[in-house]
Amino acid sequence: MVEYDAVIVGAGILGLSTAYHIKKKNPNAEILLIDKLGTAGQANTAKSAGAFRCLFYSRTNFTLADSSAEFYRHLQDDLGMNLKLRWAGYLWFFDEEGYRQMQPVLKDLAEKGFEYKEYDENELAEKLSIQTNFTGDEEARLMGLGNVYKGVFIPKAGFIDVDSLVRFYELEFVKLGGKIQYGTEVKNIVVEPREPLGIPSEPFFWQDSRAVGVNTNRGMIRAKKTIVAVGAWLPLLLDPLGVECYIKPKKRQIFSVKAKTDSLKKLLRIKDFSSVGCLPFTILPKPSVYLKPALEEDAFWLSYGDEFPRAFQLEENPQPEENFYRYGIYQVLVKYFPQFKDCQPFSAFAGLYAINTLDGQPIIFEENDLMIVGGASGSGIMKADAMGRIAAALYSGEEYAMLYGDREFKVSDLGIKNRHVEPEKLVI
Amino acid sequence: MVEYDAVIVGAGILGLSTAYHIKKKNPNAEILLIDKLGTAGQANTAKSAGAFRCLFYSRTNFTLADSSAEFYRHLQDDLGMNLKLRWAGYLWFFDEEGYRQMQPVLKDLAEKGFEYKEYDENELAEKLSIQTNFTGDEEARLMGLGNVYKGVFIPKAGFIDVDSLVRFYELEFVKLGGKIQYGTEVKNIVVEPREPLGIPSEPFFWQDSRAVGVNTNRGMIRAKKTIVAVGAWLPLLLDPLGVECYIKPKKRQIFSVKAKTDSLKKLLRIKDFSSVGCLPFTILPKPSVYLKPALEEDAFWLSYGDEFPRAFQLEENPQPEENFYRYGIYQVLVKYFPQFKDCQPFSAFAGLYAINTLDGQPIIFEENDLMIVGGASGSGIMKADAMGRIAAALYSGEEYAMLYGDREFKVSDLGIKNRHVEPEKLVI
Repeated sequence: MVEYDAVIVGAGILGLSTAYHIKKKNPNAEILLIDKLGTAGQANTAKSAGAFRCLFYSRTNFTLADSSAEFYRHLQDDLGMNLKLRWAGYLWFFDEEGYRQMQPVLKDLAEKGFEYKEYDENELAEKLSIQTNFTGDEEARLMGLGNVYKGVFIPKAGFIDVDSLVRFYELEFVKLGGKIQYGTEVKNIVVEPREPLGIPSEPFFWQDSRAVGVNTNRGMIRAKKTIVAVGAWLPLLLDPLGVECYIKPKKRQIFSVKAKTDSLKKLLRIKDFSSVGCLPFTILPKPSVYLKPALEEDAFWLSYGDEFPRAFQLEENPQPEENFYRYGIYQVLVKYFPQFKDCQPFSAFAGLYAINTLDGQPIIFEENDLMIVGGASGSGIMKADAMGRIAAALYSGEEYAMLYGDREFKVSDLGIKNRHVEPEKLVI
Repeated sequence: MVEYDAVIVGAGILGLSTAYHIKKKNPNAEILLIDKLGTAGQANTAKSAGAFRCLFYSRTNFTLADSSAEFYRHLQDDLGMNLKLRWAGYLWFFDEEGYRQMQPVLKDLAEKGFEYKEYDENELAEKLSIQTNFTGDEEARLMGLGNVYKGVFIPKAGFIDVDSLVRFYELEFVKLGGKIQYGTEVKNIVVEPREPLGIPSEPFFWQDSRAVGVNTNRGMIRAKKTIVAVGAWLPLLLDPLGVECYIKPKKRQIFSVKAKTDSLKKLLRIKDFSSVGCLPFTILPKPSVYLKPALEEDAFWLSYGDEFPRAFQLEENPQPEENFYRYGIYQVLVKYFPQFKDCQPFSAFAGLYAINTLDGQPIIFEENDLMIVGGASGSGIMKADAMGRIAAALYSGEEYAMLYGDREFKVSDLGIKNRHVEPEKLVI
C-alpha cells in the first residue's frame, strides 16, 4: 500500500492553505489532500461572510490576520490574481459605556501606530441616516439596545472573495504536484503501535502508538503524518482517540436583504468611508448585530453571533431560522436603521463556526503523528495563510514559522501544552 | 407550578454532597434532588475504586482531598458512622528516571511536613516477592516496563466504602427536609428570558435569559437555581445551551482477581505497611497499572487509566474489555508480580470518568442561574465533601467556602473565568 508523507483531511480554507504551504516547503513530499465533498471549500468555508480585519488587540490575532491579509494583497496587487479584495473597512458602533471600556484599548493601539478614525453620534446620524438615541423607547430598553455614542472606523479591513482564495490554494497545490482526492469521507483515524506484534486488538496501552492514516469510504489511506483540518467536525474525528482539541461547533446564520429602496441603495454604496464606495462592515452596539455590503447581490448580509443558549451542535446541513431574523436581527436592525423597515431576506444560509472554547484563537498542534489545524472560531478566512504557514513549520519540526512579510511566529504559541496567546479585547 | 429554590440533577456523590451542604446552609430553602435511576449513587459513583489519598502536589488537590478525608474520618471516628475507612496507604513504584523526576517534588513535600516513607528495590523485592529488574528481558523492553528502583509509601491514604458515604449524604439531606425524586430523567435544561414577552421561540438573543429548571420524563421542574452534577453526562445537558464545561467522558475498567493461592493471600494481607494489615493501593512504574486490595472479596482490583487512543465516549452501560485485561493489565502485572501467573478475573466492571480536560481538577461555576459541579476526573469520592461545600458557598454567593477543618477555599478558584489551580505533579 502507498504511504503518503502526509494526508490532509479537509479541503476547506485551512486544509488548503496547510496543504499548499507544506508542499511548497517540501517539494518532494507526497502530499494527499482529501475531502468528503466533490470539490474544495464547499462546507463551512463556503458559509463565511468573507470579511477580514487587521486590527486586533492581541498580538496573536493581529499577526495572523495582518500577515494573511498582506499576502492576499500581494496575490492580487503583485501577482494579478483577482481575489476581489475590497478595503472597505470596519465600522464599529459603541454606546457610551462600551466606548469608555474601549478607550484604553484604542489608546494603546493608537500608540502602537494602528490607524483608525472616530466618528461621533451626529456625524454618524447624518452620514448613515441612523437612529442613535433610544431614550424613552420602551422596546429598545427591553431589547437592551445601546445608544450610538461613537463610531470607530478601521480602514485596514474589508472583504475577500472566499471562492477565489480557495481556488488559488487548490490550483497552486496541484501545480506543485500535490494530489487531491474528492468524494473521500473519513470514517476514522487509524492508530497502530510503532512496533506491531500482530496480536488482535492492538494497540495495547503499553505500546507506543501513532496515527498511521485514515479509513475512508474509498479504503484506507496510509501516511507518515495525518493532518486534520475539518473545522467544526474535529471533535468527531478526535474524540474517538481521546484527543482534546477544545473545539465546539456553533451555528451562525447570514440573511441577505436586497437594497430595494433608494435609501437602502444609498446606504449600500455610501462614498464617505473608503475609496471602495460602499458601507463598511458595520457592527451595531451591543447586542452586536452586523451588516456587510454584498455589492454583487445589491444586498446587505445581516448576521449576529449569538451565545447562551445557542447550542454547540454538529449538523450536516444547518438551516437558517426564520425567527432568528424576524424577532432577532430585524428588530435590532430596524431600530438603528429605519431604512430596513419591512425588509425580508430574499435568501439566507447557515454554517458552523469551529469555536475554540479556550480563547477563541486558532489551535495547531501535533501528537503521535497526528496534526490538528483548526479552531479559528469564525476567523478562518482572514487567518488562513498564516495558519497554513504555521502548520507547515510544525510539519517540518521548526520552532518558528515565517509568515508573509518576514514575520516570525513561534509555532508552539498555538499549541496546547505551551500555548501562548493574549486575550482579545476587540471582539465582535 | 411549584418553583423550588434549587433543583439538583444527579444523585451521584457530587450531587448528594452538594444537596446536603446547600440544604444545611439554607434550612428553609426548598431543595429537590433528582436522578434518572431508582436510587442514589448507582451510576458512575458506583464504579469508583473507592480509594483516596491526601498527598497531592497542588494546593487545590491537597485541600479538596485532605479536608474531605478529614471529614470522612470525623464521621466515622467521632460520629460513629461506619464508612469502612481503611488507612492502608498508597505505595508508588518508581523507576530510576521516574524517581529522579519526582525527587524535587518529594523534597518539596517533605519540607512542607508531608509524611511519606521510601523503600528501596531490595526491600520491596523481599517484602512483596516482586520482580524489580527487567534487564535483558525483551518482552519487558517491548512493553516499556520500568524497573522498580524505589517505592514511596504514603500513609494518609486508603479506602472508603462508597455506598456508605452515599447513604450518609442521602440520609442527612432528607433528615434536613431535602426532597429526592428518583426515576426522573432530565431531557433538557429549560431557558427562558428574565422578562418574557410571550412571543413564540423566545428567548431571542437580545433578551437576558436564564435557566429556569428542567424538562423531565415526569414533567417540568421549575427552580430558581438549576444545579447540574451529572458527571460524565454534563456535556450532554450543557452542549444544547452552548455552555462549555471542559468535561469529556472516558471509560475506566476494574478487573477483580481472587487471591486464590497462598502467595496471593499473603500479598493481599501483608502486615508490613499499615495497621490495616493489607497491601496498600499500589501503583506500578510506568505504564502505571494499579492494584487495590478488596478485602471483603478476598481479591485484588486491577486497573489502568489508559490515554491515547482511548476514546472520549459517552455510554449508558460501558463494558469492561476482556483483552484490556488479558493483553494489557495482566501482561504488565505478571512481570512485576509473578504470583498472578495465570490469574483470570472473576468479575469486572467499567464506568466513566468525567475528565476535566483543562487541568484534571474539579469545575464548579455558575452562569445564568445554572450551576455546574463536576469534572473531578476520577477523584470525585475523595473530593466530594469539599466540592459540596464549595458548591454551597457558590449557591449562597459567598467568595470563600469554609471546608471541613476550618480551611478557607476561594470559590472562584474552581470556576472558569478566574480559575486558579496549580498543576498536579503527583499523577497516577
